Amino acid sequence: MGKLIIAGIGPGDRDSMTIAVEKALNAADIIVGYTVYADLVRADYPEKESFTTPMTKETERCQIALDLARQGKNVVLICSGDSGIYGMAALVYELRGETDTPEVEILPGITAACSGGALLGAPLTHDFAVISLSDRLTPWEKIEARLKAAAEADLSIVLYNPASKSRPDYLSRACDILLQKLPADRPCGVAHAIGREGENCQLMTLRGLRDFPADMFCTIFVGNSMTKVINGKLITPRGYPNV
Amino acid sequence: MGKLIIAGIGPGDRDSMTIAVEKALNAADIIVGYTVYADLVRADYPEKESFTTPMTKETERCQIALDLARQGKNVVLICSGDSGIYGMAALVYELRGETDTPEVEILPGITAACSGGALLGAPLTHDFAVISLSDRLTPWEKIEARLKAAAEADLSIVLYNPASKSRPDYLSRACDILLQKLPADRPCGVAHAIGREGENCQLMTLRGLRDFPADMFCTIFVGNSMTKVINGKLITPRGYPNV
Repeated sequence: MGKLIIAGIGPGDRDSMTIAVEKALNAADIIVGYTVYADLVRADYPEKESFTTPMTKETERCQIALDLARQGKNVVLICSGDSGIYGMAALVYELRGETDTPEVEILPGITAACSGGALLGAPLTHDFAVISLSDRLTPWEKIEARLKAAAEADLSIVLYNPASKSRPDYLSRACDILLQKLPADRPCGVAHAIGREGENCQLMTLRGLRDFPADMFCTIFVGNSMTKVINGKLITPRGYPNV
Repeated sequence: MGKLIIAGIGPGDRDSMTIAVEKALNAADIIVGYTVYADLVRADYPEKESFTTPMTKETERCQIALDLARQGKNVVLICSGDSGIYGMAALVYELRGETDTPEVEILPGITAACSGGALLGAPLTHDFAVISLSDRLTPWEKIEARLKAAAEADLSIVLYNPASKSRPDYLSRACDILLQKLPADRPCGVAHAIGREGENCQLMTLRGLRDFPADMFCTIFVGNSMTKVINGKLITPRGYPNV
């Protein structure tokens, strides 16, 4: 019987992987993943077997990873960022059900809240909420209620999946909701293509964010009431004395 | 002029560090950190200089790290988990102010939401809030309002710093607030001493969590309305079709 490791590879550059994930990839018989992310890793392992599926084929991808492990392969199923946060770990456990076979291990990775935050400065020094704007699997009304609640409770907010080709206006709609509760000059930041070619980030106000042309490679940060810009960095102080 | 790298070392075991953090530690002239976390790393570098300060001396620790870099040293300031999430990155930028010297670089690390989630199963597949129960730097009323908002918006919740010797009852107080909004049988989990000696985790209901004797090495997970236990793992489904 093989083993299935679900590995978060972080934003995409090799140095942002954990040592544990690198060891797992080195030892893998086969690497499974969503085409775009698998391609980031496969280039380093031209000799290894791989199996990729497009987006919307998550269930098939996880089922095949489990089947390959049952057939005796050591399988690494890769996720971008973390393996748990909006990742494939839950789906694998759901598909495996009430059994211990095949063996499953979850290796965490650097999620975009951490890698994007590091690029922009330090926006998440205090309590925060992580909210995906994708309504493929969640009703929009629920997303809207979560945005309102996070703004009212003065949480910093990280938005994952802020836009896609079929949802070009979702970030604007989210900002309109936030602007009902938060000031238009609230400091915000966008991290784009973290750890990949074309990586960049920029600061703006919440009003400016409303009209920002985000794409699916953006991670968005909305500050809390304490967040400020220091020397071009987005900073949420913790409140240590004597600063 | 030296450089100051603020590095998140993850939960504590070496394999959970990123490759980038390992490279930074290998190249460091001096390692600076909170005594407990610095000791996790220093054992691997017996020949390197180090400077440690106790908890509550965060400002002094960051100021010394900046001073050492200005004096020409390559300094790595380590944080447990991520360098940004409740970490030292913001304080360093605040202390450095409106200047680019010394050069500062932030290297993210695996935060307890990711490492603890991986240990327990996959509780954070959907939107979530991260809330610290420490009121050393935050009024308790604000923490309470955030707990209420997160519960009302059906966010999964990760609690950092759930208890300490001087705050033995804070987790109970937090659970009492959550129990006003959430059912007593809501699945929850506790990850303890992640990546260190004595690592363990356990599942319980929200009612059970109320009376759990948490300590400062615990990270707490409260599920959302979809969270369930599958084969001993805490799982929040994303809602993929055909499962």
